[in-house]
Amino acid sequence: MVLVSPRNPLNIGAAARAMANFGFARLAVVAPYEAHWREAKSAVGADELLRTAQRTESLAEAVAGCTLVVGTGTLTYRKPEQPVALLPELAPLVRREMERGGRVALVFGSEKHGLTREDLSYCHRIVVIPTDPRQPSLNLGQAVAVCLYEIASRALLPQETGAGGGSDDGLAAGSGKLDILATLVDETMTAAGYSPRAMREANRHDLRLLLRRLHPTERDTRRILGVFRRILWRLRQGQNGGKPE
Amino acid sequence: MVLVSPRNPLNIGAAARAMANFGFARLAVVAPYEAHWREAKSAVGADELLRTAQRTESLAEAVAGCTLVVGTGTLTYRKPEQPVALLPELAPLVRREMERGGRVALVFGSEKHGLTREDLSYCHRIVVIPTDPRQPSLNLGQAVAVCLYEIASRALLPQETGAGGGSDDGLAAGSGKLDILATLVDETMTAAGYSPRAMREANRHDLRLLLRRLHPTERDTRRILGVFRRILWRLRQGQNGGKPE
Repeated sequence: MVLVSPRNPLNIGAAARAMANFGFARLAVVAPYEAHWREAKSAVGADELLRTAQRTESLAEAVAGCTLVVGTGTLTYRKPEQPVALLPELAPLVRREMERGGRVALVFGSEKHGLTREDLSYCHRIVVIPTDPRQPSLNLGQAVAVCLYEIASRALLPQETGAGGGSDDGLAAGSGKLDILATLVDETMTAAGYSPRAMREANRHDLRLLLRRLHPTERDTRRILGVFRRILWRLRQGQNGGKPE
Repeated sequence: MVLVSPRNPLNIGAAARAMANFGFARLAVVAPYEAHWREAKSAVGADELLRTAQRTESLAEAVAGCTLVVGTGTLTYRKPEQPVALLPELAPLVRREMERGGRVALVFGSEKHGLTREDLSYCHRIVVIPTDPRQPSLNLGQAVAVCLYEIASRALLPQETGAGGGSDDGLAAGSGKLDILATLVDETMTAAGYSPRAMREANRHDLRLLLRRLHPTERDTRRILGVFRRILWRLRQGQNGGKPE
């Protein structure tokens, strides 16, 4: 589970407690507010979870090893760029990913703003907790509890059938691998003069989203990397006046 | 919803907030600790729900008009005298009761002791939130949120199936469009000298499979075509000895 820039120490504590209640062990915290994070960690009864939490500067780092990144949010104010699932629909997706050996991250934004558009561009999906439209905004600790309950009771517990299964080929590429591919494609597009400099940031954003929509496997990602490496090499050779073979 | 002797004003507030989030309006509070109840009610942002809450001296009074009373609890320390359901099994029971015009109460005990054996004697059923046995005890506000989420999303709302979610953009590209893309990528790979002639047929085959695994949308396919058209054009320009810009 990943918390992005959480503010309220009570909420951080409540999130950690819910993780322990529902049997989740790995917490990453992205760019926490220093004082609040220290306070949450030193609170009496603060959980082992908080002491061993991974701390990163960016969401990209926190989810680099994950094959399915699920961002949480409401849909009240933005048009989503990713597929949206209601929370009751999430369990089968998580189960499938775990059955083929993938790692799933569930990402929560700060109390104030939720996840930003940039944060969400690292997510394969958005999950929404269905709430009353007159009072849609959940407290962070409660939102965490509700999501983890749903996953624990419907994705993890019931299906503890035969371990393993699923071929290696089906394993989705980690988020970090997708970032490497995105960088390479971006360089290739630039080398091909695809987009004016002013558009590059927007194109990079779209590219992150696109790769998550495609959700390529590890092996496919390796192949695509191979193709683009060759293309980029050739493009640069061309630009340097290299002779065609 | 009924809270029996709640203590912590923050928890009372959190419970009320969760009710509003999930569309529940009727709160009853049994024998609250006077000072804490006053504090919860006067807190900034305290909900309409708290101001209009019914206050009773006994649980019997609070649930007098209800046809199905469900007590919440863990099973760690007592032998239940009522039928026990896990929370994921609760929705059908609640739905059936409401469909035949009944009224359902969900009862939470105090933070310290939970519901007493006497409290439970007013309950038709006990519902248990499945938690990790090493850390079974949920915070009251979080327990309320989890239970109300379960009921709201599976007993009350279930008719909202097909709605929401997927946008038009999600329409998958037709097979013919994928073939156009495959041909273009193949030409690009050839122009970049990616694969020896002997491998081309096998690569084409893999490429077809790859594109189907990725299952891009119509719109994404158009974008990817745009990128490869530009790359191919630039590669050929380079090979024809065209000057780099």
